[in-house]
Amino acid sequence: MSKPLILVTNDDGITAPGLRALVRYMKEIGNVMVVAPDSPQSGMGHAITLDNTLYSKQVIFEQGKDAPVEFSCSGTPADCVKLALQELLPKKPDICVSGINHGSNASINVIYSGTMSAAIEAGIEGIPAIGFSLCDYSWDADFEPAEQFVKTIVRQALERGIPNGVVLNVNIPRTNGESPKGIKVCRQARANWKEKFDKRTNPMGKDYYWLTGEFVLLDKGEDTDEWALANGYISVVPTQFDLTAHHAIQDVNNWTLNE
Amino acid sequence: MSKPLILVTNDDGITAPGLRALVRYMKEIGNVMVVAPDSPQSGMGHAITLDNTLYSKQVIFEQGKDAPVEFSCSGTPADCVKLALQELLPKKPDICVSGINHGSNASINVIYSGTMSAAIEAGIEGIPAIGFSLCDYSWDADFEPAEQFVKTIVRQALERGIPNGVVLNVNIPRTNGESPKGIKVCRQARANWKEKFDKRTNPMGKDYYWLTGEFVLLDKGEDTDEWALANGYISVVPTQFDLTAHHAIQDVNNWTLNE
Repeated sequence: MSKPLILVTNDDGITAPGLRALVRYMKEIGNVMVVAPDSPQSGMGHAITLDNTLYSKQVIFEQGKDAPVEFSCSGTPADCVKLALQELLPKKPDICVSGINHGSNASINVIYSGTMSAAIEAGIEGIPAIGFSLCDYSWDADFEPAEQFVKTIVRQALERGIPNGVVLNVNIPRTNGESPKGIKVCRQARANWKEKFDKRTNPMGKDYYWLTGEFVLLDKGEDTDEWALANGYISVVPTQFDLTAHHAIQDVNNWTLNE
Repeated sequence: MSKPLILVTNDDGITAPGLRALVRYMKEIGNVMVVAPDSPQSGMGHAITLDNTLYSKQVIFEQGKDAPVEFSCSGTPADCVKLALQELLPKKPDICVSGINHGSNASINVIYSGTMSAAIEAGIEGIPAIGFSLCDYSWDADFEPAEQFVKTIVRQALERGIPNGVVLNVNIPRTNGESPKGIKVCRQARANWKEKFDKRTNPMGKDYYWLTGEFVLLDKGEDTDEWALANGYISVVPTQFDLTAHHAIQDVNNWTLNE
């Protein structure tokens, strides 16, 4: 059987150590192509570039026969996937993996996540897709303890297939060099951010803000991603892009909308 | 009873005719405050500004006793809502309405929508929220045929309450001056965009792309937003920000993840 074609992307940019780690792991599983942003795109959500041009160029990070073909792109993570699928890849990839993100995309963070938006974009196009994130924002975060788990998840996804309309959101706990305890399939924990705007004045006397905030977990469930991560497990949340709240349709149908 | 406080925002920017129409309609229902982007933010999805500063300033579009207090903001639609709730509003609003967007946010477009991301941001903060969009991209689109329907939906939402964790995605058909036929509560139609990248060469000889595409409806259901719009109805889709695909948890639990 021929090796699977694996599209690797991310939101921290093509030089991020988390992406380089993911490329290394994926080379053991298939033929790797990289299409990733040329600069960091954290917090970009599912943004796409409508009013501006997109540039992409081939870049070389590795030499040798098994070196992946790599392109950097001026757009958002979702743009990268669109451009990869439509213009840059020789054929439809067997899977798209995004990450490994420097920082958590568990719980409500999935909404703001460029890492997951890239995976979701691939999912919309009918390609099995997984976003990986490590709960450590630092640039020299240690991805190695998760290596075997990441490869297991990708191999299982290739073997079993991911259900249609579903994309996996995988988060990895920070373990200080130890191996995570295992993998738990979870639901997304309810949470929000308690924003704090740090208000300052620029040298010209104009006020401006920095967005900062504190994560507030609103969910005590033991079947959530936050519980798994807090207890040393890797969380896998099947995530969907049909946003319909089917359970609420009947509720709203009871409103007086057509008199 | 005191009048409700209504936060109005959008993604087309504070000067967009669609926002000005929504402000006019909301002034009949409550006290209006506007916090909206200072420039167009279409396609921004749920982006937030993490690596840059945010500016906001009070702006005046109307004179008179019932003129709304208005702020423009340098950030994304989600930033505007965060800043409004945390810094600019005197108290928690009773409802947040976003739009009226110039262009459809039905079906898969909800994923890319700045209009809906503003509403979803408010929903995450526990505030009833509705995004409104008109299926007409032109700047001189005619919002008036929808006026009574928009007011009915907002009044019903204030009276009945929107279920927790749910935000309404309202799309309005283009009707050439006629009244829409009514309102249908729907699910999000399955669809995607068939991208086409328009490749060009800049004056310096470097290739670049414009993202264009064609909407592909993959869903023949008569309970979808696309069906309602195609048949002259306003669509209301209850939309959620818990992205967990609960039906897929058992599937993925059958994988060999922990050996």
